[in-house]
Amino acid sequence: MNAYEYAAVHRNTFVNELKSLLKFRSISTLTENNVETAQTAQWLAEHLHHIGLNSVSIFNTPGHPIVYGEWLAAPSAPTVLIYGHYDVQPPDSTPDNPWLSPPFEPTIRDGNLYARGAADDKGQIFAHVKAVEALLRTTDKLPVNVKFLIEGEEESGSINLDSFIESHKDLLRADVCVISDSHILATDRPVIVYALRGLVYTEIEVRGPKSDLHSGAYGGVVYNPAQALCEIIAALHNPDGSVNIPGFYDRVRSIPETEREALKKVPWTDDEFFQETGAPAPWGEPGYSRREQIGLRPTLEVNGLVGGFIMEGAKTVLPAKALAKVSCRLVADQDPQTIFELLKKRVAELTPSAVTSEVRLLNSGNGAIVNIQSAAIEAAAVAYERGFGARPVYLPEGGSIPVVATFQKTFQIPVLLIGLGLPDDNLHAPNEKFKLDHFYRGIDTGIALLERLGTMTPETVRAQ
Amino acid sequence: MNAYEYAAVHRNTFVNELKSLLKFRSISTLTENNVETAQTAQWLAEHLHHIGLNSVSIFNTPGHPIVYGEWLAAPSAPTVLIYGHYDVQPPDSTPDNPWLSPPFEPTIRDGNLYARGAADDKGQIFAHVKAVEALLRTTDKLPVNVKFLIEGEEESGSINLDSFIESHKDLLRADVCVISDSHILATDRPVIVYALRGLVYTEIEVRGPKSDLHSGAYGGVVYNPAQALCEIIAALHNPDGSVNIPGFYDRVRSIPETEREALKKVPWTDDEFFQETGAPAPWGEPGYSRREQIGLRPTLEVNGLVGGFIMEGAKTVLPAKALAKVSCRLVADQDPQTIFELLKKRVAELTPSAVTSEVRLLNSGNGAIVNIQSAAIEAAAVAYERGFGARPVYLPEGGSIPVVATFQKTFQIPVLLIGLGLPDDNLHAPNEKFKLDHFYRGIDTGIALLERLGTMTPETVRAQ
Repeated sequence: MNAYEYAAVHRNTFVNELKSLLKFRSISTLTENNVETAQTAQWLAEHLHHIGLNSVSIFNTPGHPIVYGEWLAAPSAPTVLIYGHYDVQPPDSTPDNPWLSPPFEPTIRDGNLYARGAADDKGQIFAHVKAVEALLRTTDKLPVNVKFLIEGEEESGSINLDSFIESHKDLLRADVCVISDSHILATDRPVIVYALRGLVYTEIEVRGPKSDLHSGAYGGVVYNPAQALCEIIAALHNPDGSVNIPGFYDRVRSIPETEREALKKVPWTDDEFFQETGAPAPWGEPGYSRREQIGLRPTLEVNGLVGGFIMEGAKTVLPAKALAKVSCRLVADQDPQTIFELLKKRVAELTPSAVTSEVRLLNSGNGAIVNIQSAAIEAAAVAYERGFGARPVYLPEGGSIPVVATFQKTFQIPVLLIGLGLPDDNLHAPNEKFKLDHFYRGIDTGIALLERLGTMTPETVRAQ
Repeated sequence: MNAYEYAAVHRNTFVNELKSLLKFRSISTLTENNVETAQTAQWLAEHLHHIGLNSVSIFNTPGHPIVYGEWLAAPSAPTVLIYGHYDVQPPDSTPDNPWLSPPFEPTIRDGNLYARGAADDKGQIFAHVKAVEALLRTTDKLPVNVKFLIEGEEESGSINLDSFIESHKDLLRADVCVISDSHILATDRPVIVYALRGLVYTEIEVRGPKSDLHSGAYGGVVYNPAQALCEIIAALHNPDGSVNIPGFYDRVRSIPETEREALKKVPWTDDEFFQETGAPAPWGEPGYSRREQIGLRPTLEVNGLVGGFIMEGAKTVLPAKALAKVSCRLVADQDPQTIFELLKKRVAELTPSAVTSEVRLLNSGNGAIVNIQSAAIEAAAVAYERGFGARPVYLPEGGSIPVVATFQKTFQIPVLLIGLGLPDDNLHAPNEKFKLDHFYRGIDTGIALLERLGTMTPETVRAQ
């Protein structure tokens, strides 16, 4: 029995194991879940030990623990660092859009596994874990050296990861990095992501009176902080949808014509757009295609808005304060700290003198661009062909995996961004799912990737 | 023992009775409190019966019940309709501004009675109840006929009151109406309110994608509903702070020069403003004094704002929708329904085509102006002198008591707006209080008012 056969035979077991992992409420942004998040790390570490890795450790950080596991018994072969995260987004059920099955009770419907984290990222990292298991169980060895690095803070900005990598360079050193934390276009259209956006996540708080006031008694003589917040936020965009912060676009790279042409061949159609989003109409910065708007242009988004009376009914209150969660997606070369400072300056300028404002940085990360002309990228393409039966396309992606820039900077190695999910997996929304067929194909892709990389020298693999 | 002496002797009893009334969580905007709100009406009705009214009824409405009680044994004397409300605002404690004692456990500190509703309006209406009791217990009769009308929906827009009044005109007919639901400037500076603002309370909801989206995966191609809401709200004001809704000011009465001069004599100083509000700086529509801005000019206020992720930490979500609670304070002659239509039209015009919006009317009420040159108003001034030891000043007030316009329209009678509270009573905010000294003075004022009105003919009293 080869590794692929082993994976095929053990599908049910693998799915049940993944369900166990998905039951943990490892919501990294909510401190009330800290204990369960730590238990998730513990479960994962035990599981990595169970599949046959030589050495597994849990590293504590000021935040959530990092799980590390290695198998290094292939001295002359390349070393593959496989990164993923075990933390998940909050469930955020709403009356309009509830979870059809509870977010932490994994449920299979129509060939999909529904649970928070099913695709982002527990299911995707687990496919690689199972690929390694299949190889180890059937050949008693691996074609390459493997290092797993699975963190618990990706959804809260990986705030302790960079310093961990910096202080554990020797432990983590590798010839290539593999990340499955994105989605492909369709089962027969896998995607290698070559650009990721960076992130600056902030809170803008506007304060006025010392406490909530009666809007009748004081409306008209006290500047309303919720009104002021809306005015500030409205002024952060130009009428055409571009961001109105002086200097914001200074370091944004222009998109080469060849790249624009290549992207035109993979259109994101209006039909797909409406199907995925349900938005009333398309929208975006003029002069750029949808793929460019998402992957290669920076944005500023309001992620949350709160102030005053927000319950059922009416309360005539003039709120003491109002708060917005505002984040910018950045592209390669934009420095998150610089953008934060520019935003801070702009908000200060926009703040009326009858209120005060504060901009707080919650987290940030760099964008990245990957050179797609490398042997390692070709190995990923071949692996995709084995797993999904099709050659991948190369696309920029709108999300942020800040550690990609860190790996590039620290180790000077290619980063293979080979997603296994689908566009409608409902990441960061109710009813997140992972197609089981993609879980199985992902395991095969993982096996094929390690086999292919095992035929190459470390030098060939690390060439960017 | 005369009525004043009776009131002085029974202070402790009266305060304990008021505490019993304040313990009820009669929050009219929250349906979960419906049973307790009905129990409050029951308690009040029993209490009105207990003090010696001839007839007491509870009228059910589609919302909260109305309590009515009457004593009509003075055939040739004027009839006084005393209006108040037993419902209260939600407690709305915040981590920054918590209740120092629980809102529904009335607590005395430094001569103040702290509880939700202490001043607005349970404490104030109860002063009149106790005035009637003091007269009945010491003289076995009243100098006038008295009708109490105490509703349970003032804080949710008195939505069933107008139709109740319309269908119970004969029951409620009176020569003058008395309302204590406002505040005075200081113990030695009582205030007769001669203008009240109307109200239109709405919700503006903006919707975009069918569900919350990942702000990385879709930020840049989907119009963000929270951003759109901020843009709409920002555009509802002009840079100078006036309301930017075409037609909004069409029916706003200009302020006569004599009235402006009179108001100048009762300045609302910067010191007082800062003391009361804690706002960083004064603000307001240019060309108007603070008293004019509050009492004689309409406004548009954001009472609440909510959308997307509003919990601790960071969630990179592009929200499916965002909602604002927006209300306008109106002045006499502005029609609430017309203003609602104008707001709706303006929001529709401002809504970008890539999102949808809806403006919902939650409640509304008319503003009012009272002629201060009447015998009934002079009776109120004399009563204030007896209770507070000082002549009142005449001021416009920023809040809304829509029933004033209804009483004026329905019965063509003077409405005496004689508040008993203080500016720092924290209405609609945590730590609402009522100064016990004002409760006692309010009872004396109530006794004096009924005595004075009893010396007048019904015709004199009803002259406006």
